[in-house]
Amino acid sequence: MRVSPGVFSERGLFVCFEGGEGAGKSTQSRLLERWLVDAGHTVVLTFEPGDTAVGRSLRQIVLDPATGDLSHRTEVLLYAADKAEHVDTVVLPALARGEVVITDRYVDSALAYQGAGRDLALAEVEHVNRWATADLRPHLTVVLDVEPSAGLGRFEGRDRIEGQSLEFHQRVRQGFLDLAAADPDHYLVLDARAAVDDIAAAIRERVAGMLP
Amino acid sequence: MRVSPGVFSERGLFVCFEGGEGAGKSTQSRLLERWLVDAGHTVVLTFEPGDTAVGRSLRQIVLDPATGDLSHRTEVLLYAADKAEHVDTVVLPALARGEVVITDRYVDSALAYQGAGRDLALAEVEHVNRWATADLRPHLTVVLDVEPSAGLGRFEGRDRIEGQSLEFHQRVRQGFLDLAAADPDHYLVLDARAAVDDIAAAIRERVAGMLP
Repeated sequence: MRVSPGVFSERGLFVCFEGGEGAGKSTQSRLLERWLVDAGHTVVLTFEPGDTAVGRSLRQIVLDPATGDLSHRTEVLLYAADKAEHVDTVVLPALARGEVVITDRYVDSALAYQGAGRDLALAEVEHVNRWATADLRPHLTVVLDVEPSAGLGRFEGRDRIEGQSLEFHQRVRQGFLDLAAADPDHYLVLDARAAVDDIAAAIRERVAGMLP
Repeated sequence: MRVSPGVFSERGLFVCFEGGEGAGKSTQSRLLERWLVDAGHTVVLTFEPGDTAVGRSLRQIVLDPATGDLSHRTEVLLYAADKAEHVDTVVLPALARGEVVITDRYVDSALAYQGAGRDLALAEVEHVNRWATADLRPHLTVVLDVEPSAGLGRFEGRDRIEGQSLEFHQRVRQGFLDLAAADPDHYLVLDARAAVDDIAAAIRERVAGMLP
């Protein structure tokens, strides 16, 4: 799976939340942020796609149902462009300041959605994404694992990605689990159906030992 | 320079115009189109960036001075996304129908502007662009070569790319010339200061022997 050993920032702490739609990533990332801030850490809570000026334009293009069908390579490159801007202007500067960066989605989402979920060669999708992100890896990726049907059921209106087939979302789920299984030292997989407080406690326990 | 032998369409004819700002690419591509249509060929005259729905949005982002500084990798990926959509939805379908495709700018512009013009590794810029375009190569690339200062002098209002330094544009020019020198069978380099009719005649002479 891995085309390179990756780059781990020597300063700060870089934590990612990954998983399917409706898994509770934003809830858990906010709870982790609150706990870290209360403990005196400086935290940057961010997300992909869209947390830069150019990223907001790209997010609108890729998620708007009016965009219609995009070439799959186009979609990969648009998400990768968002990541390049996000890493260079948000993530790396914060890590260089020694801060904690928590992001809701990162490279694994590209690999799961565009690699496992589509018909493209995963190695090429990964190559483009590693280049886009200067090969920067999270110290920890928390995968909130959920049955696609359960997660999708939480939403009334679905965007372009959420509107894909159940089979697509099942391949995406397996993509996240495969990435975690290949590198357990940098992953924490949790059942997203557990109680919110129990999930939060499990995340805090793992993060506590990694703080700068 | 080349990371792979490339893919040449077996049907149709794929001709690109490349060169710096103000070299006369759009004039010459229109003259070639007119001549081919008069001779009974079906011609698709197109351009990069921006000749698809998503491409128009991307063109706006990359050329608008209000976008400000972009990470150089972001810029490469945005242009590559435009190319992926352009090749899949415009260029390849027309070639499959046996038509002539004339494009104002293609992969060489990415290599010259983002590889030679910026500080990125040219091999990586090329890898991303070859993947974006399914490695499709033009049967002929016409480089309209012009001293940057002369070309830039033709415009009053300059966009984000045109507003770069003269030295940047000189590296871009050399980038085009290097690409042509490495593969003379697929290139025609012409002095853009020659008379419009003389340039057009030289292009027609070369294209005449390649028609489907």
